Amino acid sequence: MERDFIDWLNKNVPRHPRAELGLTDDAALLSIAEPSKVVVTTDMLNDGVDFRVSVDDPRRIGRQALGANLSDLAAMAAKPVAAFISIALPRPGGTGPQPLELAKGVYEGILALAAEYDVAIAGGDTNSHDGPLVISVTAIGETTKCGPLTRSNGQVGDWLLVTGKLGGSLLGHMFGFTPRVREALFLNEHYKIHACIDISDGLALDASRLAKASGVGAVIRTEQVPISPDAFTLSDQDGAADRDTAALQHALSDGQDFELLLALDADVARKIINDQPLECGLTHVGELVAEHGLWQQGATGQRLELPPIGYLH
Amino acid sequence: MERDFIDWLNKNVPRHPRAELGLTDDAALLSIAEPSKVVVTTDMLNDGVDFRVSVDDPRRIGRQALGANLSDLAAMAAKPVAAFISIALPRPGGTGPQPLELAKGVYEGILALAAEYDVAIAGGDTNSHDGPLVISVTAIGETTKCGPLTRSNGQVGDWLLVTGKLGGSLLGHMFGFTPRVREALFLNEHYKIHACIDISDGLALDASRLAKASGVGAVIRTEQVPISPDAFTLSDQDGAADRDTAALQHALSDGQDFELLLALDADVARKIINDQPLECGLTHVGELVAEHGLWQQGATGQRLELPPIGYLH
Repeated sequence: MERDFIDWLNKNVPRHPRAELGLTDDAALLSIAEPSKVVVTTDMLNDGVDFRVSVDDPRRIGRQALGANLSDLAAMAAKPVAAFISIALPRPGGTGPQPLELAKGVYEGILALAAEYDVAIAGGDTNSHDGPLVISVTAIGETTKCGPLTRSNGQVGDWLLVTGKLGGSLLGHMFGFTPRVREALFLNEHYKIHACIDISDGLALDASRLAKASGVGAVIRTEQVPISPDAFTLSDQDGAADRDTAALQHALSDGQDFELLLALDADVARKIINDQPLECGLTHVGELVAEHGLWQQGATGQRLELPPIGYLH
Repeated sequence: MERDFIDWLNKNVPRHPRAELGLTDDAALLSIAEPSKVVVTTDMLNDGVDFRVSVDDPRRIGRQALGANLSDLAAMAAKPVAAFISIALPRPGGTGPQPLELAKGVYEGILALAAEYDVAIAGGDTNSHDGPLVISVTAIGETTKCGPLTRSNGQVGDWLLVTGKLGGSLLGHMFGFTPRVREALFLNEHYKIHACIDISDGLALDASRLAKASGVGAVIRTEQVPISPDAFTLSDQDGAADRDTAALQHALSDGQDFELLLALDADVARKIINDQPLECGLTHVGELVAEHGLWQQGATGQRLELPPIGYLH
């Protein structure tokens, strides 16, 4: 099986000028634009935890695996360069797709997304084991002349902006999402951003992480959170008594939205909101405050504690 | 469990100046010495395939997981900078060590080796799944001013040298081996090396890989192969009729020796053999030849085909 798959890989993984040795050597050799820093992120995805082989399209699983890493690079405003894909395949037998088809499907999803973002698939490892599908992706990026963003430099008084719309990833968006790489690079080039994180575990949890790393608190203006139509559909499917509240809960706590949460000086943020430079939209959803913790503030203006609910792996 | 383990990691993974953000951000930010190239290698190890949790010390499993990657960097004459560790842990229950102890043990092995080689543990991912232990390590290195080595530049007439002694890794050396990082950097600095590979799957298989990548053939002088005492012990344990032949087979085909196989101009190789600059020793084991394929030549001088036996994962 593995020999067949390696042959398939050698035919299907394109050569990329950034990875000059192809897949043939002990390690990959990457050229990084100087004087960049190298940005590295890694995620492991497991069948039954992050996806389900029994129901999910393998191409979507592959897209998710690489996409989650590209979203992490976007959060640092790093330009993706290369990715390394290691897979542990289940043994043949069982119900779902068989190992070779599964592996090819996962790679088809990965290769399509890699092509969209000009990412070299520069190495990896493929094994079989007596267990469920495991995909481990490491993505390498480089900082641009604008430098990296981190989650730890938010300032009291900063506005919090999000890209796109939140919630409802359970409906399938989590496999089809667009990592906000281009958006992050554009914003970092044109505006002074203090801090950034990708919303991988829900707006509430990731806002609390950005605030904590910055040594401040965060207020979310709940009535301003941009809610995805999928979050309303999910609320209807759940038979929620209060459709709007249920949809907001999805927007605050669903994992894998993979939008960006940015902290910027209020004046800069007002300018961005006015400019609306991104197709996906940018929305003002709150502020950073001196009082530690996570807070919500509704239309009445009253400030209440907001539990950092979210998707904990 | 995972929360406990993350806390343990935050206490036990040392900060490293090369990874300036620590473990706190979406991705790691690495400074690479300019004008180096970035060298990246990744390996996934699986319980039941590469090790057995039921009998192996978790610290040795961790050492093996990082060590295999450092050995790949050594083969490219790259200086290790950082490593990223992703682990899928089995659920609690069953025989063998429980997940938290297993994870800590693996990391203790990794951290000790990382300290020996001044490698930053700069990120990773820890999950639980309904399956056996999976460890995925990605190691990042940088080339030195002497440039990288590859496996593809061997020339007809080159001598083949190996570091250390081969065979018998099954006896436990595979967990305690020393990746030949310092040796590779030293040799690359002081001698002109045409090609290099680490012997991870047996001398025969890896020599055939180096030869094929270089577009040439290789002859192994079987009577000159330096055989580890462990290979003889294993032959005795096997009850081999011909002890010497059995030990040679171990030296030719056992996986995970993690010594280096080097191809150099014959004159340079003679000088190295004369200098013997390494504590682990360097031995002349053959040559690269125009005729494609892998060959063995014994004391009688007769050249026979040598099957590229070895450890195929």
